[in-house]
Amino acid sequence: MPENCFDVAHLGHVELLTDKPVESLDFFVNVYGLTESGREDNSVYLRAWDDYEFHTLKLTASKTTGVGHVAYRTASPEALQRRVDVIERMGCAIGWVDGDMGHGKAFRFHDPDGHVFELYYDTKRYVAPPAERPALKNLAQRYHGRGAAVRRIDHLNLLAKDVSAIRDFMAQALGSRVTEQIQLDNGRLGGCWFTVNNKTYDIAYTEDHSDMSGRFHHVTYAVDCREDVLRAADIFLENGVFIETGPHKHAIQGTFFLYVYEPAGNRVEVANAGARLILDPSWETVTWTETERKKGQAWGLPTIPSFHSHGTPPATAAVDKQEK
Amino acid sequence: MPENCFDVAHLGHVELLTDKPVESLDFFVNVYGLTESGREDNSVYLRAWDDYEFHTLKLTASKTTGVGHVAYRTASPEALQRRVDVIERMGCAIGWVDGDMGHGKAFRFHDPDGHVFELYYDTKRYVAPPAERPALKNLAQRYHGRGAAVRRIDHLNLLAKDVSAIRDFMAQALGSRVTEQIQLDNGRLGGCWFTVNNKTYDIAYTEDHSDMSGRFHHVTYAVDCREDVLRAADIFLENGVFIETGPHKHAIQGTFFLYVYEPAGNRVEVANAGARLILDPSWETVTWTETERKKGQAWGLPTIPSFHSHGTPPATAAVDKQEK
Amino acid sequence: MPENCFDVAHLGHVELLTDKPVESLDFFVNVYGLTESGREDNSVYLRAWDDYEFHTLKLTASKTTGVGHVAYRTASPEALQRRVDVIERMGCAIGWVDGDMGHGKAFRFHDPDGHVFELYYDTKRYVAPPAERPALKNLAQRYHGRGAAVRRIDHLNLLAKDVSAIRDFMAQALGSRVTEQIQLDNGRLGGCWFTVNNKTYDIAYTEDHSDMSGRFHHVTYAVDCREDVLRAADIFLENGVFIETGPHKHAIQGTFFLYVYEPAGNRVEVANAGARLILDPSWETVTWTETERKKGQAWGLPTIPSFHSHGTPPATAAVDKQEK
Amino acid sequence: MPENCFDVAHLGHVELLTDKPVESLDFFVNVYGLTESGREDNSVYLRAWDDYEFHTLKLTASKTTGVGHVAYRTASPEALQRRVDVIERMGCAIGWVDGDMGHGKAFRFHDPDGHVFELYYDTKRYVAPPAERPALKNLAQRYHGRGAAVRRIDHLNLLAKDVSAIRDFMAQALGSRVTEQIQLDNGRLGGCWFTVNNKTYDIAYTEDHSDMSGRFHHVTYAVDCREDVLRAADIFLENGVFIETGPHKHAIQGTFFLYVYEPAGNRVEVANAGARLILDPSWETVTWTETERKKGQAWGLPTIPSFHSHGTPPATAAVDKQEK
Repeated sequence: MPENCFDVAHLGHVELLTDKPVESLDFFVNVYGLTESGREDNSVYLRAWDDYEFHTLKLTASKTTGVGHVAYRTASPEALQRRVDVIERMGCAIGWVDGDMGHGKAFRFHDPDGHVFELYYDTKRYVAPPAERPALKNLAQRYHGRGAAVRRIDHLNLLAKDVSAIRDFMAQALGSRVTEQIQLDNGRLGGCWFTVNNKTYDIAYTEDHSDMSGRFHHVTYAVDCREDVLRAADIFLENGVFIETGPHKHAIQGTFFLYVYEPAGNRVEVANAGARLILDPSWETVTWTETERKKGQAWGLPTIPSFHSHGTPPATAAVDKQEK
Repeated sequence: MPENCFDVAHLGHVELLTDKPVESLDFFVNVYGLTESGREDNSVYLRAWDDYEFHTLKLTASKTTGVGHVAYRTASPEALQRRVDVIERMGCAIGWVDGDMGHGKAFRFHDPDGHVFELYYDTKRYVAPPAERPALKNLAQRYHGRGAAVRRIDHLNLLAKDVSAIRDFMAQALGSRVTEQIQLDNGRLGGCWFTVNNKTYDIAYTEDHSDMSGRFHHVTYAVDCREDVLRAADIFLENGVFIETGPHKHAIQGTFFLYVYEPAGNRVEVANAGARLILDPSWETVTWTETERKKGQAWGLPTIPSFHSHGTPPATAAVDKQEK
Repeated sequence: MPENCFDVAHLGHVELLTDKPVESLDFFVNVYGLTESGREDNSVYLRAWDDYEFHTLKLTASKTTGVGHVAYRTASPEALQRRVDVIERMGCAIGWVDGDMGHGKAFRFHDPDGHVFELYYDTKRYVAPPAERPALKNLAQRYHGRGAAVRRIDHLNLLAKDVSAIRDFMAQALGSRVTEQIQLDNGRLGGCWFTVNNKTYDIAYTEDHSDMSGRFHHVTYAVDCREDVLRAADIFLENGVFIETGPHKHAIQGTFFLYVYEPAGNRVEVANAGARLILDPSWETVTWTETERKKGQAWGLPTIPSFHSHGTPPATAAVDKQEK
Repeated sequence: MPENCFDVAHLGHVELLTDKPVESLDFFVNVYGLTESGREDNSVYLRAWDDYEFHTLKLTASKTTGVGHVAYRTASPEALQRRVDVIERMGCAIGWVDGDMGHGKAFRFHDPDGHVFELYYDTKRYVAPPAERPALKNLAQRYHGRGAAVRRIDHLNLLAKDVSAIRDFMAQALGSRVTEQIQLDNGRLGGCWFTVNNKTYDIAYTEDHSDMSGRFHHVTYAVDCREDVLRAADIFLENGVFIETGPHKHAIQGTFFLYVYEPAGNRVEVANAGARLILDPSWETVTWTETERKKGQAWGLPTIPSFHSHGTPPATAAVDKQEK
């Protein structure tokens, strides 16, 4: 395990950009099932019913789509400082910011592909107003059952030109472990799954075949069981949401998945990992070859071509043509 | 969070004593769905299909029932030494042992109620023989679908006279966090749920009302979904296994549970926690009052009286009479 | 099989009386998940999202609770007339009525305990308004996912002083088959489950121990899977609905059940029967003895005492005291 | 509804031909989860754990694959005679046979594409030997949990050159109702789903694009929930069974499906229909256009090309080439 691998506690939130803010918000609240915590400037702060923090999704009106920034919460103020020291030495620091509505000061930095990350410790815990108080006090909010009613933020997936560079970067910057990866025949890494805790992954990177950088692949919230994913498929179907692929089970990580595009085109997933956790402190990275990946998903579903090309903001048509 | 709270990685295994070794083994293999890894002396080593270690259950023929010892794996050799130092200072050390078939040297100690624990780092990873190799390489063993087909060890529950003493002890010895607890009106703790990682709990203690010590309440393996728990209920029913209570959902921790007695009388659980994890590094213990506990389980099922009295080895009839 | 046992096609609708019409309606629409079709006089007409008829529940404001009437649809106009002839000969006819908002003329009659039944053929098919049109044209209405989102009416349960008399009556009047029954040690029938089609039962009668007649036990809507029943339990919990018992599996008929009281006190069930059907034309009634019934439900849950006493309208306290 | 549409009670059994009898039997017993009832000549008689008859699958060693015959049970001896009279008038009768191990005399006839059908009433009810007796007396056999552990036979699908001719034939010969169908742009029927009872379908026919006749598409057994289908996918994956497509949900009929090839190449399905039934006696056929069918399955999965070409016995390569 990387040194101080416990400094970072968990994925905190993702800022998503949308050029259809009204439609995107309606999707996330009424179809996906998040709850609004607050608004500020061009952003709406959202969270799932068992997310303990003020927000886990910051939806920001923009002239484009994709990811604004990605935030992780550290295990302590000291751990935050240790990470800042490391990141400053790595030369990718942006610097301190005051923090969003949902947390205190945060330290920002770039990954090698240009995505913006931040680390913070001080957070604003969600306090349920009376109408949202759960019947059982160990839940953050009542189970409202609205839309897909996802339970908590799970992970995100970013695109990057050089996944190998990302692998080194994430281990160094966040102390992340690589739980699974795809080794292409050409020597490059096709994809890499990272975790800072016992989840099987909290972030994944897959290779971007476009000439763009800093692109976003998808963000995922977890539900309690596979039936919830199947139910979400019907919810999406009845609400006219574009279903890209699934429900099916990934060979890699074994996640039961369902991918849709929210109205602005950002890919969003509903997923369930069953009882799978990475508890082994000496877990050895599982490496999938290109041949193995070509077998498709766990039960044989071919991976849909758009999964390898569609990211946000969208690439040019010229680039997309190269994909198939 | 307690200092060095990441020294201990996870619950490793539980040694269970049985005075009906043949019947117990048949139950664990053919009905509960564990797989035998090996045998030595009076013990059979067992594991669930996605347990990565050689064994997670050591079933030992004995003249009585209950727990032999409980083992946790540390995050590193250094973490093991740090824990040993702490435990020796605490004055509850037993000392080093060579280790079972499934792992290297281990350091043993007592909890305040007399249960034997051990810590180890060196482990023997399970290597699936050809017939047990999984179709997907990120699983420890093929999903065989035999019996309840539980996936991995989850937690255990021990009885103790003084749960408050245990609360302090576990924080100090293992760096465990208390995720939930029951505060009785008489000022004592009725129960306490601990974790060393992101699982909601890996061990629980509840108050022993008998005059015995070192008793065992239950051990639990996780399945991927609640449907698996319901299916297990049918498997148990058809195999003549005594079902004590469930399936239902605990108010505390929200676990979907099913409790049965294996042939020798030890209580065994099949459970599912959904997507619930404790990711918050500043999680505040959830405290349930006696009044709240009296409401029963999540959906109103009264807690069965035997849940407060039945432990192994069994208490005397005189003591049991006090329970109701 | 009884002669002309195919004359009656299926349970059509149930009229439920409520002395808390506003609260009951809110429960049925927002928590249970029915959709309003229309209103007339003191009644609101409701249906589940895959019920093909205009209504399957008629909720009528009243000064008491219980059942107004129970309606079955016949297989054809000729079948309706055949049944009318039989029922007139039986001497329990009430006569023709014009029919509710949801169907044409209906023929009314009494069962031996005084419950009012009606038979009709002409029906008003539900036509989904644009906002309720399903994505798949073989569904009656879109899957809205609101509340427990039950799929279709399944069965009801009535109380009667003399279940044996009911057994003969239902075979004669409706051509119902008895799929399962409870034979008490005292020679009386404790309960009887009937069907006119391939469902395992569409109506059940259990013995009324009060001195009242014409009482109602519960009405049930079906969901697609047991996970839907578990999800409904959380929906009820979060909405403050009284959960009487469940989720659990009945030994009799194997139904996975969950019983709650709607705000006025009428018992309502959410249930799933899995893939179980009665396809055998020579099905022999399964008879459960009193001893077998005392074993409780399928996985050992004791039958809750109120299940044998609570009906609507409620019996007097004096009578209730006799129940335990 | 067709006259005397209740003469035929349900699909009884399917005879499947295999040129790999040992491998096919191992698949059906240990992977699919059927139980052997007996053997005679080149056939093994099999049934699912809740099938009430002696057998629902007759597996016959042969030099080819495909379907031997398809059997329906009538509602009574009189109904059998009525059907025989009709079929003899239709000119497609083969005549009486003594019946298999599992039932009495049967009347055989041909459908327009040359498939052999039979009707029978006298049946041999399955009597569970002690080791297979269920804990609950309303089940045919204990839930053994072996392999995919399918519950009961559900339906089959045959290929035919002229589906329109089949539509008329099934209504006339069996009194079947057409619940759903596919209307191609060229005026032909692409597929037709029939039922004789409240199931949504017990047989389907789809157009055979080869120059062969009497071919078989698939046979299906039902499980209790969609989780059982997902679990079956893992069972198939771990046992090296070829998964053709699924799990996913059909747009037509809404069935949650999973298709595999048993070792000899016959297509076999595991499916769940949820709580969907056709209770309406005046059900109007749902007609899907070619455009609608091109949308793929319910959640967007494209229909796999082999679904339109692979049947047993296999067509010649020349014919297969025309398919795409």
